[in-house]
Amino acid sequence: MPRPHSVQPGSPAGGKRTRNAILHAAASLASVDGLAGLSIGSLAAALGMSKASVGAYFGSNTELQLATVAEAARIFAEEVVQPALAVPVGLAQLTTVCEAFFAHLERRTFPGGCFMASVALEMGDHPGPVSDLIAAFQSQFGALLRDFAATALAQGELPGSEDPDRLAFELNGIIFAADTNFVLHDDPAVLDLGRQIIHQRLRPAGA
Amino acid sequence: MPRPHSVQPGSPAGGKRTRNAILHAAASLASVDGLAGLSIGSLAAALGMSKASVGAYFGSNTELQLATVAEAARIFAEEVVQPALAVPVGLAQLTTVCEAFFAHLERRTFPGGCFMASVALEMGDHPGPVSDLIAAFQSQFGALLRDFAATALAQGELPGSEDPDRLAFELNGIIFAADTNFVLHDDPAVLDLGRQIIHQRLRPAGA
Repeated sequence: MPRPHSVQPGSPAGGKRTRNAILHAAASLASVDGLAGLSIGSLAAALGMSKASVGAYFGSNTELQLATVAEAARIFAEEVVQPALAVPVGLAQLTTVCEAFFAHLERRTFPGGCFMASVALEMGDHPGPVSDLIAAFQSQFGALLRDFAATALAQGELPGSEDPDRLAFELNGIIFAADTNFVLHDDPAVLDLGRQIIHQRLRPAGA
Repeated sequence: MPRPHSVQPGSPAGGKRTRNAILHAAASLASVDGLAGLSIGSLAAALGMSKASVGAYFGSNTELQLATVAEAARIFAEEVVQPALAVPVGLAQLTTVCEAFFAHLERRTFPGGCFMASVALEMGDHPGPVSDLIAAFQSQFGALLRDFAATALAQGELPGSEDPDRLAFELNGIIFAADTNFVLHDDPAVLDLGRQIIHQRLRPAGA
């Protein structure tokens, strides 16, 4: 199983890059072993760093968990959302965001599949600031899908019988299922099936 | 947060019922705190029992985890699959199995939502017998949905353009999304939206 690379705090690039490298390693670790158990101590041990070196960047375990979620959300925005914002508004955005999600899984950005999906199920029943941050992320992503769908509908690119809320929920479900099956069976065929489904589901109106 | 009830090993109903009660408590605990950390020691502590009493039923932590997954799969079969096997074959089975899944979430059989979905994402990247058992369960459930869909298609209850593999994947995704959103937002409106989507998605051919 992939393990985070070791982080050298003394690298010339300085504190910010070290903090980012620690956070990326933390997100990789949490995507496999869970977020609830992520602590300054467990992360330091996994990275072969001292607790004090890791603790210098994060004041508490909760602060570390919040920063890890924020870093994973930043990577998700970069790899999954940004490609969709670069194409024409409407249906193209909807297909692109789903394709970008499959590419995100395929390149195994995190060893445990989609970080945000893993921690949503793990932390959803642990009320607190970390769970609130994850819920806010999921709501925002749902709203983004809904906005793309509403634009596609307004532009006549989807059948008038479609509903943006329902379609967003369905697409979210298809990519969740792809993530779970990909993590569980480690089979790229899962992603091909996911792509086919998106292609069928998002046929332009009249096609 | 709901915690498992304490288990009284000295109850007159005897060892088998005690074992089942321990396993149900173990599945509840694992649906919230994860399966990887479930051990004879952690379960004994959560139940207020001695390690020796819990250990009398399970030879090792792996055996306990496997038995917990098997118990959760038994409950899933009883609550989600059985209702669908009791209705006419084809489309009615497909709608009934989805409805039964939403009812399973709604009655909060496990405090952390669908046990099998939670542990699939958690354990999928921890190779071993527990992950294999979960993958086998997910494959079987996928095959069940596909069989229901194939029968519905063969009976002309769904448009000929549908594909059983794709439809099974989509339905699995919709119920995954309902689970994740229900766990994260604790809002029954999520289940209503899920029901609407299933109703729309599974309109009979020609309707």
